[in-house]
Amino acid sequence: MSENLLVVGVGFMGGSLALSLKKRGYRGKIYGLDVNPEAISTALDLGVIDHGTIRYEDIKGTPIGVVFLASPVRTFRSIARDLERVLERDTLVSDLGSVKGKLVSDLEEILGGRFVGGHPIAGTEKSGVEHSVPDLFENKKVILTPTDRTREEDLKRIRDIWELVGGKVEVMDPYLHDWVFGAVSHLPHAVAFALIDSLVEMSGEVDLFKYPGGGFRDFTRIAASDPVMWRDIFLENKENLLKAIDTYTASLNKLRSLVERGREEELTLYLKEAKDRRLRLE
Amino acid sequence: MSENLLVVGVGFMGGSLALSLKKRGYRGKIYGLDVNPEAISTALDLGVIDHGTIRYEDIKGTPIGVVFLASPVRTFRSIARDLERVLERDTLVSDLGSVKGKLVSDLEEILGGRFVGGHPIAGTEKSGVEHSVPDLFENKKVILTPTDRTREEDLKRIRDIWELVGGKVEVMDPYLHDWVFGAVSHLPHAVAFALIDSLVEMSGEVDLFKYPGGGFRDFTRIAASDPVMWRDIFLENKENLLKAIDTYTASLNKLRSLVERGREEELTLYLKEAKDRRLRLE
Repeated sequence: MSENLLVVGVGFMGGSLALSLKKRGYRGKIYGLDVNPEAISTALDLGVIDHGTIRYEDIKGTPIGVVFLASPVRTFRSIARDLERVLERDTLVSDLGSVKGKLVSDLEEILGGRFVGGHPIAGTEKSGVEHSVPDLFENKKVILTPTDRTREEDLKRIRDIWELVGGKVEVMDPYLHDWVFGAVSHLPHAVAFALIDSLVEMSGEVDLFKYPGGGFRDFTRIAASDPVMWRDIFLENKENLLKAIDTYTASLNKLRSLVERGREEELTLYLKEAKDRRLRLE
Repeated sequence: MSENLLVVGVGFMGGSLALSLKKRGYRGKIYGLDVNPEAISTALDLGVIDHGTIRYEDIKGTPIGVVFLASPVRTFRSIARDLERVLERDTLVSDLGSVKGKLVSDLEEILGGRFVGGHPIAGTEKSGVEHSVPDLFENKKVILTPTDRTREEDLKRIRDIWELVGGKVEVMDPYLHDWVFGAVSHLPHAVAFALIDSLVEMSGEVDLFKYPGGGFRDFTRIAASDPVMWRDIFLENKENLLKAIDTYTASLNKLRSLVERGREEELTLYLKEAKDRRLRLE
């Protein structure tokens, strides 16, 4: 593989993809485009990208094989429209966004079918290109969401790139993806953000944040994630997230009611089932 | 310090206290009492305790300086009544329980004032004496909850033991303790157990537990904690926990509503404040 790649949105995820490719000896050049000139100059200084710009016009005429969108998901539609003006006809576009579904249909519409949705299940609460790491995707699942419009060879090009950086590719319907990740990822993040909010609410006389050792430090690591990225994910996957929050609230209410009514046996069973289910992950 | 100690409830916490004392060269003998003969034989085999029994009668006449209760908190009252029958008059009793408040008053009543409540803010999701570790309390907060009835020298004896194993002792009112830890520890555990319950609920066509990488694996580590221990904590600290769950539910509803109404700016602010507050812990 030696085609040039363009990463749009040069932050932690896009930067980590670039570094991972370089580490594996990828031979094409890596271009970066970001609205923030500082992100570009940092990425150039750190050798994360080979060339960088803040203007779409600079891309025009540059031979780019594949573009990866790596900015917050709600910027994708307008970026796709800007790219459509400057990309060669045969340039493929993919992304690293946490939401697929309708967004994939819209991007296919804008880009004329040459879009392949992707979502690497990797990341930390870190943001910013300066935190990029070259082994982020090693042995991590990468969900690709082709549709009826996707050509087999385009899917293969994207799959090959992810496999090169150690990803375990799995294909999934874009709408199913949003339901699954609404439950296993977007919901836990919402739950963690809300936990912090409630602890701020309850911190009056006593600063509760002085006592993180009893369980809430690890638990809320993910609440330190980038607010704009998560705002976009929550809004873009609104319907699934709201349903997941409602199911979750019902589960918490069930637990609350067992405690309130002192239902020892049912409460033990509730906690034991959660423990057993959780342990099967290990 | 060389008085003999008795640990009642020889599991992960009690076993770790015993191992920590031995590692620091504590010179007294460590006795263990547990209703489960297997826990005693494992603890003896692993050298966690020096002597073990399943009968209170065997304690009678044994010179014991301090007893540490380390079983699930709702067993403490009946254990205290059993101990009261067999302990010498000057034997001090303390505990490692996660709930204080009314439980401390009750234990003082049963034991005639020679009780000092304690709660080391340490532990993992592990349970069982075979997982005991000798450095569990190193640099961890240990909350002691003396009352008007507590004698200064008794408090000091317990403080010295915890400082020997590396604990950072902090004194707190027993009722304030339950409010604080209801919020920072019992609430997060309830939230994590409920998250697993809701993911089981939502797992139908797709096994959601196949996708733990997007945030819920770390987040729910604490849901693998011992069900009986947590049932006891939840029921014993019921009032504070219910209040904390209600505040938390209000926080989650606020977030839900911002997402539902697409309130970009307020949503960004909500997430940003949570992130900033969480980062200040680091």
